[in-house]
Amino acid sequence: MRVDELPTPALTVDLEALERNLDRMASYCREQGLRLRPHTKTHKTPELARMQLERGAAGLTVAKVGEAEVMACTEPEEILVAYPIYGAEKLRRLAALARVRRILMSLDSEITARELSAAAQAQGVTFGVLVEFDAGLHRCGLQTGPACVELAQSICRLAGLKFRGLMTYPGNIWGTERERTEEVQRVAEAVQKVLTAFECARIPVEIVSAGSTPSAFLSHKIPGITEIRPGTYVYNDLNTCYQGLCQLEDCAARVVATVVSTAVPGRAMIDAGSKTLSSDLLGSGPKQGYGLVVEAPEVKLFKLNEEHGHLDLSGTDRRFRVGDRLTIIPNHVCVCVNLQDEVFLVRHQEVIGSWRVAARGKIR
Amino acid sequence: MRVDELPTPALTVDLEALERNLDRMASYCREQGLRLRPHTKTHKTPELARMQLERGAAGLTVAKVGEAEVMACTEPEEILVAYPIYGAEKLRRLAALARVRRILMSLDSEITARELSAAAQAQGVTFGVLVEFDAGLHRCGLQTGPACVELAQSICRLAGLKFRGLMTYPGNIWGTERERTEEVQRVAEAVQKVLTAFECARIPVEIVSAGSTPSAFLSHKIPGITEIRPGTYVYNDLNTCYQGLCQLEDCAARVVATVVSTAVPGRAMIDAGSKTLSSDLLGSGPKQGYGLVVEAPEVKLFKLNEEHGHLDLSGTDRRFRVGDRLTIIPNHVCVCVNLQDEVFLVRHQEVIGSWRVAARGKIR
Repeated sequence: MRVDELPTPALTVDLEALERNLDRMASYCREQGLRLRPHTKTHKTPELARMQLERGAAGLTVAKVGEAEVMACTEPEEILVAYPIYGAEKLRRLAALARVRRILMSLDSEITARELSAAAQAQGVTFGVLVEFDAGLHRCGLQTGPACVELAQSICRLAGLKFRGLMTYPGNIWGTERERTEEVQRVAEAVQKVLTAFECARIPVEIVSAGSTPSAFLSHKIPGITEIRPGTYVYNDLNTCYQGLCQLEDCAARVVATVVSTAVPGRAMIDAGSKTLSSDLLGSGPKQGYGLVVEAPEVKLFKLNEEHGHLDLSGTDRRFRVGDRLTIIPNHVCVCVNLQDEVFLVRHQEVIGSWRVAARGKIR
Repeated sequence: MRVDELPTPALTVDLEALERNLDRMASYCREQGLRLRPHTKTHKTPELARMQLERGAAGLTVAKVGEAEVMACTEPEEILVAYPIYGAEKLRRLAALARVRRILMSLDSEITARELSAAAQAQGVTFGVLVEFDAGLHRCGLQTGPACVELAQSICRLAGLKFRGLMTYPGNIWGTERERTEEVQRVAEAVQKVLTAFECARIPVEIVSAGSTPSAFLSHKIPGITEIRPGTYVYNDLNTCYQGLCQLEDCAARVVATVVSTAVPGRAMIDAGSKTLSSDLLGSGPKQGYGLVVEAPEVKLFKLNEEHGHLDLSGTDRRFRVGDRLTIIPNHVCVCVNLQDEVFLVRHQEVIGSWRVAARGKIR
């Protein structure tokens, strides 16, 4: 089947662009001597995780226990659950998984560490643990300094846990090249500060995990980090593009939609709304609109309802006919993928298969 | 299991509030002599559709073919696909469904009508058709007047289609009571204008379908309409609440979340982010934030990442501990439900079962 025969709306994946994106990140990490532990939250697809592992990824990253359970089938050397999981039932599942797969956890509180230790002991397993510190995003993570060392010392005392290092999510490295460069400096200082504290306390730090897609190719400017966890780079999206991190042709995941109504003057409606694209706003570039219309970039996708995308034709000569097909690059591909049961694989405009988004909706 | 033992994040449904919401809408429609054809896009759950049908709903409404296929099992007297479906594969599926269930379609173009006619003829079925007109929202729908009559006349000439009436989506009835009252007037005038045009053309109009949740209880002020299609009223949400259409206790669907990090001063993180709540902004009331924290309404849920909800504790004395459980009323429940594989049914704080969100993700 050709792409233009695919029932819409549908999320397509251009395999050439995907492979190019995977190769580029794998090469960078190899050249810089960084381990790549890609975050699978973007694709939620074991087939794609296998492509990452085949290209040398050192394990996988997930945010949820359900994602770890799905990704276990790819037999990664280790799964990092980069999230302070709390709750007996989830920790019980995680400990069960730890019997067959090596699990590394990040956390930033002694409460979470103690719960994890209890779950580990109940099933006779050991979790590796990273202490999360805040390098400027102010989301999770302890302040750099004594707090991190104290938590590491607590972890060392808890049965079933093995302190292995540090983690930060440098989501503050975002925006224009100048904004990102400034934040790289801030993150580098935070990493240095926390490493110095551990050195003074004579606690060896095996892993320092950082790295998002916007910061990935700047990772060599942050001395001390040993691995990065980018997710979005596999597909890219408008947010990546507008930060100058990729070209439009590197946006591998695109929604194919159909014009379903042209009845209202100055408007056209497509069959992809917020239940297909998500309502995520654009956090970079023009910071307007809900996606780029590839065939008509001058036409703004200015509003979404659940199943309607509103195109504004005022100020353009472009007119559409019911049945016209358009391709939309989403603002934020991770949440868009999470709305799909499957993605359709395209090579040279031919649909050659599909992947089930197996970890979609695994919120627990 | 009690609610406070449920693994989080989880979307719970309070059955008492749900039943109250269902009864209230059913009573209003009965009293006003309006047929109620509820939109199932909000709940996407056959079990709930059956509760609506048991309370006298005259059929069901859906937006997508996949939703119609799921809802067919509830044996409604008729399914209204309130969406101008376009595309051969989807229309083939719809025609197959029309062999076993009565299907009514809305559309606003001759192109769509001709495609629908072709699909009907290929499988020897008949679709009822409503012509959609624009009553002020400027989304889909023809301008009131000759355009509607001409499309109805075309439909009458097309094999496999039976013109049955008119439809509008009065999404412009939204906001404060004053704003809604003004728009009711505009919609009433549009309905009058289009009905007059059909009277002049001597084309009988059996159905005039309107009604959303924000406009539902104002429907008696719009002469001529025969049925309404509210969706959100079953669960309600912050948008409904802030428009004064329900009380907080009528918000039947709530996300239970856990505080997972308190490491950053002035902040607390919960385990429900945009992959649980959606990024939909609040379109009424304060128009800020991503949901109401029931236990601490003074604490703002000011930002979402995919799996993190950011609580701002600055300016309040409230402090949380990792493991604390909070209940969030979502801004927009329809997109929140669409992110869940299941919802958990609660009566008097006891979880007595769950429903699979069977039509979740049915975007085609």
